[in-house]
Amino acid sequence: MLNDKNDNKKVLAITSREEDFARWYTDIVIKAELADYSTVKGCIVYRPLGYAIWEMIQAAFDKMIKDTGHHNVYMPMLIPESLLQKEAEHVEGFAPEVAWVTHGGHEKLAERLCIRPTSETLFCDHYAKVIQSHRDLPKLYNQWCSVCRWEKTTRPFLRGSEFLWQEGHTAHATYDEAQTETLMILDFYEDVCRDFLAIPVIKGQKTDRERFAGAKATYTIESLMNDGKSLQSGTSHNFSDGFARAFDIKFTDKNNEIQYVYQTSWGMSTRTIGALIMVHGDDNGLVLPPKVAPTQVVIIPVASHKEGVMEQCVRLKSQLSSKFRVVLDDSDKSPGWKFAEHEMKGVPLRLELGPKDIESGQVTLVRRDNSEKCTVALDEVSSAIEKLLDKIQSDMLQRAIEHKTANTRVANTYEELAAIAEQHAGFIKAMWCGSGECELNIKNDLGVTARCIPFEQEQLGSKCIACDEAAKQLVIWGKSY
Amino acid sequence: MLNDKNDNKKVLAITSREEDFARWYTDIVIKAELADYSTVKGCIVYRPLGYAIWEMIQAAFDKMIKDTGHHNVYMPMLIPESLLQKEAEHVEGFAPEVAWVTHGGHEKLAERLCIRPTSETLFCDHYAKVIQSHRDLPKLYNQWCSVCRWEKTTRPFLRGSEFLWQEGHTAHATYDEAQTETLMILDFYEDVCRDFLAIPVIKGQKTDRERFAGAKATYTIESLMNDGKSLQSGTSHNFSDGFARAFDIKFTDKNNEIQYVYQTSWGMSTRTIGALIMVHGDDNGLVLPPKVAPTQVVIIPVASHKEGVMEQCVRLKSQLSSKFRVVLDDSDKSPGWKFAEHEMKGVPLRLELGPKDIESGQVTLVRRDNSEKCTVALDEVSSAIEKLLDKIQSDMLQRAIEHKTANTRVANTYEELAAIAEQHAGFIKAMWCGSGECELNIKNDLGVTARCIPFEQEQLGSKCIACDEAAKQLVIWGKSY
Repeated sequence: MLNDKNDNKKVLAITSREEDFARWYTDIVIKAELADYSTVKGCIVYRPLGYAIWEMIQAAFDKMIKDTGHHNVYMPMLIPESLLQKEAEHVEGFAPEVAWVTHGGHEKLAERLCIRPTSETLFCDHYAKVIQSHRDLPKLYNQWCSVCRWEKTTRPFLRGSEFLWQEGHTAHATYDEAQTETLMILDFYEDVCRDFLAIPVIKGQKTDRERFAGAKATYTIESLMNDGKSLQSGTSHNFSDGFARAFDIKFTDKNNEIQYVYQTSWGMSTRTIGALIMVHGDDNGLVLPPKVAPTQVVIIPVASHKEGVMEQCVRLKSQLSSKFRVVLDDSDKSPGWKFAEHEMKGVPLRLELGPKDIESGQVTLVRRDNSEKCTVALDEVSSAIEKLLDKIQSDMLQRAIEHKTANTRVANTYEELAAIAEQHAGFIKAMWCGSGECELNIKNDLGVTARCIPFEQEQLGSKCIACDEAAKQLVIWGKSY
Repeated sequence: MLNDKNDNKKVLAITSREEDFARWYTDIVIKAELADYSTVKGCIVYRPLGYAIWEMIQAAFDKMIKDTGHHNVYMPMLIPESLLQKEAEHVEGFAPEVAWVTHGGHEKLAERLCIRPTSETLFCDHYAKVIQSHRDLPKLYNQWCSVCRWEKTTRPFLRGSEFLWQEGHTAHATYDEAQTETLMILDFYEDVCRDFLAIPVIKGQKTDRERFAGAKATYTIESLMNDGKSLQSGTSHNFSDGFARAFDIKFTDKNNEIQYVYQTSWGMSTRTIGALIMVHGDDNGLVLPPKVAPTQVVIIPVASHKEGVMEQCVRLKSQLSSKFRVVLDDSDKSPGWKFAEHEMKGVPLRLELGPKDIESGQVTLVRRDNSEKCTVALDEVSSAIEKLLDKIQSDMLQRAIEHKTANTRVANTYEELAAIAEQHAGFIKAMWCGSGECELNIKNDLGVTARCIPFEQEQLGSKCIACDEAAKQLVIWGKSY
C-alpha cells in the first residue's frame, strides 16, 4: 500500500482559494494533472485529463456546427508576411505578437512566414480562389488547430504562447446572413457553456476599443470566475465586407452582378478549461460537470483483499460502462489516497464498495460537488447514478448562476462605480455614452474594463456614468483575465 | 440549369492514368476538391472532403488506441534547438529539414525554436519529469497534430512541408513490452488500411538504411499503388532505451532498482489519403470505400420539377439518414452534371429517382466502383443499400489484393531482378545478405529500394541476389513514393 490516509493531505494539498487564488489555480492545473509546463516558454503540455476535457468540449461544439451545415477544413499553419499585411487593421493587431519563421533547414527564406495567430488571411486567400458564383455561397468552414501568440505573461489555459482552439470562417452573400451566422454561433457558445460546462454567461457586443482587429462588430460571451473576475470565453465577429475588399473576394449574384462577400469568424479555445477550474473548483481540487467529465464515476474498492470485493467491482464496472464513463481504480494505493486523488481530478461521483456493502447488497455513492453521501441498493445503482449525474450537472449550473447574480451590482453614479470597483470583484452594470474616452478614463481610474454591451439592456438612468452626456447603452464592467 | 449533360466531360475531365499518372493524381486532388494549393510553398489547404476523410480515418484509429488504454495529449509545436540536439542520430536525421523560428514579435529569441518535425524530444522531456516509479508505467500517449518538414519537392498528401498525422509515444518497463506495443500498433495500421481503406499491406521491418533516426528497429506497412509504386503508409518504431539514456528517463522498479524506460513511437499521416486515391481511383475520379466515405449515398432527383419527385427524395433522405451518411443533391445543376460531380468525388452509391421510378415504386442504384446499376423496390431500399455498401467495400479490397498479387514478382538472379525492375513496376521478392553495400548497389544500379524485410518470410534460395554471400532474409524491393 502506497500511503495511508494520513499522508493524503500532505501530498495532495493545494493552496486554498482564500489564501491565494492565483496559486490555487496553478496548483490545480498541476496536481490534477491537467497540464504541465514545458521547456518552451509560455507553452504547456496538455496532459491526458486536460486534453480529454478538451475532446469533450470539441465533440459538443463540433456536433452543433456540423448539424448546421458547417465543414471542418485545415489551413497551413504558416502565413507569408505579405499575406498577413493585406488587411491593415488586422496586421496592426497581430504583428507584434507573432512568431516568425526565417529559415527552412539550412536556408534563409526569401520571405518570412509567421505561425498563424489566427487564420483570417489564409481563409480569405482560399475563398478568393474558390468563390465565384452565388452557388458557392455560403461557405461555412471551421478548423480545429493551435495558434501562436507571443505573450509576455502566460498562465496555463488562460494565456499562452500557443493554445488550442477552433476558428470558424464563413462567407455569405449578404450582410444580414453574416450577422445571423455571427449571432447563431454566439448562441452555440452560450449553449456549450451552459449545457455542458454548467457555466452561465452574459452575451453582448464588445466596445470599439475591444473589437477584434479587422472586424466590424465583435460579440462575446463573458463568464464570472469564483474570484469575481470576468473571463472572455468565446467571441464571434462580423467582418461585413472589409476582408472581402482587402482580399478581393467577389461573386456573381443571381442578377449576374459582381458583389463582395460578407464574412464572419469565431473562436473558442482551451481557455474554457481555465473557466471550468475557476468557476467550479474548490479547495480539494477540480470539480467537473458530469457532461464534460472524461470519467464520470470512479469505483473504489474498500478492503479489496476481502472475498468478493474485487469481483463485485469488476462486475459493476462492466455493467455501468455501457451507460457511463467509468473507471475502476484497482491500483495498490490506499482507499483514502484514491479518494483524495479522484477528488483532485474532479470526478463527479465516487462509488465505494467494501465487504459491508456486499453483505447488505448496496454501494456507497459520494458526490464530488457537495460531498453528499448516500447508499443505494445494488440493483438500483445504474438508475441512481443517472439521476445523481443529472442532479450534479444542474446543481452546479444553479450555484454558478447564483454566484453570478450575487456578484452583479448596479452603479448609478461614478462614486458608486468607484466604490464597488474598489470593494468588490464581479460584474458592475452602469450606463455609458459610447465614447472611447469615458471608457478609457474608467479603465485607468478604476481598473475595470467594459466587458460587453449586453444584449439584455436595462435603463438604469439617462446619463453616462462618467461624463454626464446622454447615455446610449448599459455596459457590464469588471476586472478580467 | 447550369449545364446539360454534354458539357460534363469537358468541365470535369481529368488526365487519364495511362496518359500521365502523376497528373491524373493531382487532377483528382484538385477536381474532387480534396485539397488545394496555398500561397505557402509545399503547404496545402485540406478542403472539406479531404478533411472529412481524414476525420473518418482518425475516428477508426482513435478508437483502436483508446480501447487499448492509450491517451491523447498535446505537446507544444515548438522545440528549442538544444532539446532537438539531445539524441545525436535523431537531430542528424531531422535538423536539415526543419523550419526555424528566430523572432517572437519584434524581438529576436535567445534560442532558436524549430517547428516540430516529430515530437520524440518533447515527449521524452515530459516523460523525464513525470515518470518516477514502475507505478507510472506504461505511459501510452498519442497526439493528433501537424508537423513541418521543409521538403524540396512536394505533392499533395504524399509529401508536404506541413502534414497532418498522429504520433504515438509510449514508455514501458521492459524491452519486450515495448516490442509488443510496437507490433500491436503495426497491426492496428494494417487493420485501418484493410478494414477501412480497403488497402492490403505488406508488414515488415525496415533495413538499417531506412530506419527512423534514433530507433533501434523500424517496422512499416507498405501498400502498392495503381502504378506499381510502393507507398510507406505507417511506421512503428522500437527505441529500446536509446532515447531514455539521452533524456535520462528512469524509474524505480518493483525491486527498488533504478532502470531506464523502453520507448516506442509510431505515426500514420494524411499520406493515407494519397494511398486511397492511387489504389482505388479511376479515370472518372476518386473511388471511396464506403467505410471512410463522408458521403456514402448521394440522392439525385431526375426531372425534379415533376410532381412527387422532390418530396420522395426528401422522404428517402430522412429515412436513410439514420443508417447511412446521405446527401440529397437538390442544387439547380442538371442530373448529368451531378452524376459526374459525385463520381469525381468518389461517392460509393448513387440513388436516382425520377417520375418513372415513382410510378413503378422503385429507385435506381448505381455503384461507383464498377458502374453496376440495379433497381430496387422502395420498401427494400435500406436493406439493399446496406448490402451494396458491404459488397462495394469487400470488392474494392478484393481488387486491390488481386492487383498486389499480380504485381508481386520473384527474382532468383540479379539478371531477373534487373529485368523485372526495368520492365515492371510492383513488388519484387529477392534474397539478401543483409549488407548495406548490396542494398545501395541495387538502388543505384536498378532504381529500386528495399521496401521492407517482410514478416512473411520465404526461402527463395540460399544466396544474396547481389553478392553471392549467404542470404539472411527475403526482402521486398520496389520503387516508392
